[in-house]
Amino acid sequence: MTEFSFELLATDGAARRGRVHTAHGAIDTPAFMPVGTAGTVKAMLPASVAATGAQIVLGNTYHLMLRPGAERVARLGGLHKFMNWPGPILTDSGGFQVMSLAKLRKMDADGVTFQSHHDGSKHRLTPESSMEIQRLLDADITMAFDECTPFPATFEQAQESMLLSMRWARRSKEAFVAREGYGLFGIVQGGVYPDLRAESAKALLEIGFEGYAVGGLAVGEGQEAMFATLEVTTPLLPTDKPRYLMGVGRPSDIIGAVGRGVDMFDCVMPTRSGRTAQAFTRRGTVNLRNARHQDDPRPLEEGCPCPACRDHSRAYLHHLIRSEEILGPMLLTWHNIQAYQTLTAGLRAAIAEGRFAQFAADAAALEEQGDIAPL
Amino acid sequence: MTEFSFELLATDGAARRGRVHTAHGAIDTPAFMPVGTAGTVKAMLPASVAATGAQIVLGNTYHLMLRPGAERVARLGGLHKFMNWPGPILTDSGGFQVMSLAKLRKMDADGVTFQSHHDGSKHRLTPESSMEIQRLLDADITMAFDECTPFPATFEQAQESMLLSMRWARRSKEAFVAREGYGLFGIVQGGVYPDLRAESAKALLEIGFEGYAVGGLAVGEGQEAMFATLEVTTPLLPTDKPRYLMGVGRPSDIIGAVGRGVDMFDCVMPTRSGRTAQAFTRRGTVNLRNARHQDDPRPLEEGCPCPACRDHSRAYLHHLIRSEEILGPMLLTWHNIQAYQTLTAGLRAAIAEGRFAQFAADAAALEEQGDIAPL
Repeated sequence: MTEFSFELLATDGAARRGRVHTAHGAIDTPAFMPVGTAGTVKAMLPASVAATGAQIVLGNTYHLMLRPGAERVARLGGLHKFMNWPGPILTDSGGFQVMSLAKLRKMDADGVTFQSHHDGSKHRLTPESSMEIQRLLDADITMAFDECTPFPATFEQAQESMLLSMRWARRSKEAFVAREGYGLFGIVQGGVYPDLRAESAKALLEIGFEGYAVGGLAVGEGQEAMFATLEVTTPLLPTDKPRYLMGVGRPSDIIGAVGRGVDMFDCVMPTRSGRTAQAFTRRGTVNLRNARHQDDPRPLEEGCPCPACRDHSRAYLHHLIRSEEILGPMLLTWHNIQAYQTLTAGLRAAIAEGRFAQFAADAAALEEQGDIAPL
Repeated sequence: MTEFSFELLATDGAARRGRVHTAHGAIDTPAFMPVGTAGTVKAMLPASVAATGAQIVLGNTYHLMLRPGAERVARLGGLHKFMNWPGPILTDSGGFQVMSLAKLRKMDADGVTFQSHHDGSKHRLTPESSMEIQRLLDADITMAFDECTPFPATFEQAQESMLLSMRWARRSKEAFVAREGYGLFGIVQGGVYPDLRAESAKALLEIGFEGYAVGGLAVGEGQEAMFATLEVTTPLLPTDKPRYLMGVGRPSDIIGAVGRGVDMFDCVMPTRSGRTAQAFTRRGTVNLRNARHQDDPRPLEEGCPCPACRDHSRAYLHHLIRSEEILGPMLLTWHNIQAYQTLTAGLRAAIAEGRFAQFAADAAALEEQGDIAPL
């Protein structure tokens, strides 16, 4: 068995090139984790996800505990087998979706009671039950149970919320069943307040985790505040553990966060955008629904190895979208996941070769140009 | 270039094992043609369709002429390039969808005027315009423009309709631009009346086509009447040309029709069923929405090489359907297309080896058993 560990292979300024080892394989960082909410990266076969270069996917505890149920997934051999993803899986703690999706919820110091958004059935999540559910799912990386502090929040609100999350982090650590190759990540909270972030990081380091996430960002604070918060947070985290910025983001967010020492990312943006005709390219986002594409024989993105770009024209993708054909979301999701994997692969190479700053500048300049001119 | 031709490789009673040669490759018969209505076999990448063993797909003239438009497809290099299907393509004449989908339609002796079901825009189809549109689409097999006689129809109604279709068949032949490797198929009409079928077949043979379709069946007459009609029709058709039964059908329909001398089939059933949780197996149809599957770790169909069966459990497929995840229709469509290709491959092997009757009996017995017992 593999011990859960992090290798730091190279640094370039604050940017890091690394590798996380888990029970189900290695993750090269910087890494983008496609979101597989309900045990499927929407509109993708697992083999297609792997073909883009993705090495790890994320599953949502809240969704999976409600349907099909964590015990059922465990009986069926765990989430890897259930969704046919043999590589590493990270599961979130469930807290974020309880706050954003559940019908009624009641928080207390011990945990959260809530009603399913499907059928109103009652459920309870505590640090202990979240650990148990994530263990039943067989996640390689378990996330500590926390409260995602709303934005905006006053210092006092952010402090109270952060202190609750730190108490829950300790209980998460105590409840987590250590297994070879499996890791538990703590989550730094504290809103946009540097003092609270420092206090949170200190509390987590005292508890000790296999990795550290930065939570409570990408909730409306804007890129500038997010980067500022990262700048005061990542230096407080140990260099020998992976750092994960939760729920982020656009390509420029990822590049900026990597430049501030983050290793891992997840976001629904590439998959969700793929279902709404939005494609991510190196020259910015492209809306395939736009009539300008209807006679365009060119690929969505020259040189991209995904089937949308390799095998089809913009005119065809436009036709699929306009005709509401399932193949449209299938191809655009594939492209977007590929675009994110191409980005992180580029970041890894740039950091290893000491040219991260140039990579970031080139990417920004290319995105600034915007899409290729119409024919 | 390849001449459009049909090789008869083996016969077993009335059942035939053959091969159709076209400008874009060969089609081994008996063949099932997946339906790619709007330039996409719904929920499938073209490479996935090919992976099931399908050698030809069908495109719908009515849908493609309205969106994206035949001229646009031609400018973009034809339907093969547009949808990235390098193999043979058959297009229907548009008449059937005009009758079933258009908003308003007015038939005259010359053709049909109708309004698009999308936007009410006015269009006209005649034998000549149908030939032109199918040429613009670059179909390897063009279908003559006909009227699909409604069912039920009196002898007089069926006769009048058939005679109109025969006049249109002649005009279709005259308007068809002969090209090396491309063929035009005539369509036998006449409802369930043997005399009319004989008269129709005779008229088509006088005109001369590269293949002969049997139209106006699978419209509500039932399997017995369909088989009875085939029994009086296929013996009237030349043995050195392919025979295509349009819009058929269930696996037992296909087996019965092959036993009555049919070579080619198309039907929306496998793709449409794939989007409504219905799977075709050798032991009959299975509804994956049914709760009996929710804890079933077994594959949908043991031994099936499709990814739904190879990589996933019934429990997972059930979960995808219940969660309305796109991957559900994707996997079930793939399975169903695979099931139909496995069936026709089995028929080809059985005919070649002189055991068609045994194959048909075994298939019927297996389907009769029904699905595997719940655990």
